[in-house]
Amino acid sequence: MQRFINNPDEVVEDTVKGFVKAHADLLALSPANSRVVVARGAPVAGKVGVITGGGSGHEPAFIGYTGRNMLDAVAVGELFSSPTAKSFHDAIRAANGGKGVVCLYGNYAGDNMNVKMAIKLAAKDGIEVATVVANDDVCSAPKDEREKRRGVAGEIFMWKVGGAKAAQGASLEEVRATAQKAIDNCRSIGVGLGPCTLPAVGHPNFQIEAGTMEVGIGHHGEPGVRVEPLKPASEVGRDMARIVLDDHDLPPGTEVAVLVSGLGATPLNELYILFDTIEEEIAARGLTIAKTYVGNYFTSLEMVGATLTVMALDAELKALLEAEARCTMVL
Amino acid sequence: MQRFINNPDEVVEDTVKGFVKAHADLLALSPANSRVVVARGAPVAGKVGVITGGGSGHEPAFIGYTGRNMLDAVAVGELFSSPTAKSFHDAIRAANGGKGVVCLYGNYAGDNMNVKMAIKLAAKDGIEVATVVANDDVCSAPKDEREKRRGVAGEIFMWKVGGAKAAQGASLEEVRATAQKAIDNCRSIGVGLGPCTLPAVGHPNFQIEAGTMEVGIGHHGEPGVRVEPLKPASEVGRDMARIVLDDHDLPPGTEVAVLVSGLGATPLNELYILFDTIEEEIAARGLTIAKTYVGNYFTSLEMVGATLTVMALDAELKALLEAEARCTMVL
Repeated sequence: MQRFINNPDEVVEDTVKGFVKAHADLLALSPANSRVVVARGAPVAGKVGVITGGGSGHEPAFIGYTGRNMLDAVAVGELFSSPTAKSFHDAIRAANGGKGVVCLYGNYAGDNMNVKMAIKLAAKDGIEVATVVANDDVCSAPKDEREKRRGVAGEIFMWKVGGAKAAQGASLEEVRATAQKAIDNCRSIGVGLGPCTLPAVGHPNFQIEAGTMEVGIGHHGEPGVRVEPLKPASEVGRDMARIVLDDHDLPPGTEVAVLVSGLGATPLNELYILFDTIEEEIAARGLTIAKTYVGNYFTSLEMVGATLTVMALDAELKALLEAEARCTMVL
Repeated sequence: MQRFINNPDEVVEDTVKGFVKAHADLLALSPANSRVVVARGAPVAGKVGVITGGGSGHEPAFIGYTGRNMLDAVAVGELFSSPTAKSFHDAIRAANGGKGVVCLYGNYAGDNMNVKMAIKLAAKDGIEVATVVANDDVCSAPKDEREKRRGVAGEIFMWKVGGAKAAQGASLEEVRATAQKAIDNCRSIGVGLGPCTLPAVGHPNFQIEAGTMEVGIGHHGEPGVRVEPLKPASEVGRDMARIVLDDHDLPPGTEVAVLVSGLGATPLNELYILFDTIEEEIAARGLTIAKTYVGNYFTSLEMVGATLTVMALDAELKALLEAEARCTMVL
């Protein structure tokens, strides 16, 4: 593999080392745990702490969303693996300002298990923890089994909204409820054109044949709903928007926020090409785009492909999305 | 090729269409020329206009740096090709607030020629144009032929500094001189691990053998100074910093800004891994990093690789780099 790495087993270690040096103005490593990143100034006394955690290889997710009015702490897992319960627990402690901590994370078996254990450990410290489990990936389970769906790039909107709500001085239950509303209002889909390889494995754990695309692919190469011949971007963008909006079923006039993220190795210009017909399809349904984000916001190593997330806005979500925040990405 | 495109000959057209829709809060297409992007609110009466232009395929460069206190207008070329003289001319006109326009661009034959022609056309309109030609790529010519060097990611610092200076109400000559100082203080190097393909061509116009890397590669795959076996990232990062700093020759105690950019298909985590020893080497020379940027800031389609830019700061450059600005990237 043509990569900038050292020991393939130490990719996460080395990534985090460089990351905390690069963004020392925003965050630091927890003195207690080298797999926990903590925002400068956290914990804030009297503010609800906001944390997440997840596997590495999705950079800038999750660590890149640590910052002011964003995530107070983030637990870092190995590549495509959940952080340990201890890391989630240490992130909770690092974010605890005495008003409770909300953990906003994605629906994956390992994360569910480790967050549950971390909450028990935090209870012994006397820290109350609320959770929101993201499940915005529409192709990962049918609509009537929404609780089985995985969390993907909609998590970024959930973090921004939750972070902004907490910064306003809201209670733990208010922050939880607003973050829950944010993710309930999100629908996402991924389209894969090329696989990625875990450096320590050395070969892709899934394949996408040249000339085809995997519609509905997950963030770790989980199979999509169908494999079809690669179509012109205008059709792919329209299909992505249709799948998301058919599931969403929003009344005309609804304002939405839109996020198009590359999966790691897709050039930015292709994301803009996709956005062109995504926007057309959204407009055709009478929806209004209030905010658009295009870039590598939530990746999967060097996977080739893109995701689309549409979040329906109400006045509260819109205001929270527009609140001032600082992290490594434009939000 | 596994790409999100439509007609391979219309990649730029389609990119710009999606781009101006996505960032309508920041910019718009020029009504006069569909290859010119103009910042909202530009031209600003009584402010020096700041423009650039360059080939497409480097997104977010160049268009993504249009915005408030940044570039007022950008001329858009075909993939890896200079914008036309007409487009540079129309960008100059769009940015002209009556106090002159500075064109901050990279040292490439086509751009040099077309900017020169555009200046003649602008003179007929009575618009005074000053230029700064970026030449930060240390491997593209020896130190005593610096004027032959190409411009690469240092241009981003030049734009930020020039945009901030103009926003302060400086004169055309002051903006030009400060932007010139910014680029004079920049040194960059690229390392390539994998080539890229122009969609209409369909195959890479250069090759990088697996297991090797091209040290000093240019933004269009221009050959570097040497091909060597791919080394661990810690050594690559250190080598990149050494090459840049040996050319720079800065006294200990100098403050610097550092930009590590991916070339398109290198995952973000690898850029952080590279940064770890880049930082070590910079610190070892007694230099202090005041600001760090890591991400896909200046790419080359889906090239695999990274660039390092180091800008030496004085009090003025540091203040201008920290001035408030808005564009599609965190600056």
